[in-house]
Amino acid sequence: MAPPLPTTAGPPSTGEIPPAAIALAIRGPTLLLLFISVIIIGTNTAGGDKFNVFSAYSYMFATGIIGIIYTFIQINVKLSQMKTGNQTALDRWVLIDFYGDKVLSYMLATGTAAGFGLTVDLYNSLSGTSSFLNKANASASLLFFAFVFSAVSSVFSSYALPKKS
Amino acid sequence: MAPPLPTTAGPPSTGEIPPAAIALAIRGPTLLLLFISVIIIGTNTAGGDKFNVFSAYSYMFATGIIGIIYTFIQINVKLSQMKTGNQTALDRWVLIDFYGDKVLSYMLATGTAAGFGLTVDLYNSLSGTSSFLNKANASASLLFFAFVFSAVSSVFSSYALPKKS
Repeated sequence: MAPPLPTTAGPPSTGEIPPAAIALAIRGPTLLLLFISVIIIGTNTAGGDKFNVFSAYSYMFATGIIGIIYTFIQINVKLSQMKTGNQTALDRWVLIDFYGDKVLSYMLATGTAAGFGLTVDLYNSLSGTSSFLNKANASASLLFFAFVFSAVSSVFSSYALPKKS
Repeated sequence: MAPPLPTTAGPPSTGEIPPAAIALAIRGPTLLLLFISVIIIGTNTAGGDKFNVFSAYSYMFATGIIGIIYTFIQINVKLSQMKTGNQTALDRWVLIDFYGDKVLSYMLATGTAAGFGLTVDLYNSLSGTSSFLNKANASASLLFFAFVFSAVSSVFSSYALPKKS
């Protein structure tokens, strides 16, 4: 016998899809993009130098790592909340989602901007492309898409605010 | 004879202060900071070169200009709404505030990050400071504080969302 479905008080626009499922659908790709971005920049070397001779790339790497930790925790919390069907715990998480997503999306935005900014000016000064800059560019691009997902998540968590008050 | 005060349905935490007054108190400093930031970077030259030989500084300048235009329009709209006391018009503006503040704060964050990122790596590569880099740093710092104000504004406009729905 199937257990009765929990009645979720989701936002009207999302119909029958529980908010936790939407959160997972957004955070899954975020985690993947961050993971690849961090691997690409983390293994990027030119001659004997590593990526971290440039502060902007170090910062980009750091924002990626923080993003992975935050998103990983969020996914695990959402999964356990879906399993237990504890709506009260979900509602309590609303403020953490709101401020967490806001801060993370600003971090990813600044990480992307610092990375892209330096890459463009290195391209201009070094005349011609290099494998090092191409990889830095690829990493910043992936970080940018992770930022877009986190910004969408931030919009959803802003709309979820009324449920708290 | 004094006209009767309009009854505003503000958020409970702000007591008697109308939301438009809070908006002005946040957007006023934002406009001032952006204005000074844009003037400092816009007049920054080294030798015969202007700031815009570096793409990161051009981007920083552009985000400042967009910020000034957006904030100037917002202040004027809020002032005219306060004068007419038109609560319906204020409510209609809630979504524009929400998405506008979100986008602007991301732009200012990325402008700051691109500016700071390049400045730090130029400091490292040029060995020693220069007036040009100090001015770029000052401009990025002011832009950072403008970002902080816009992020606070974005939190307020997120909390105002329920009034729309």
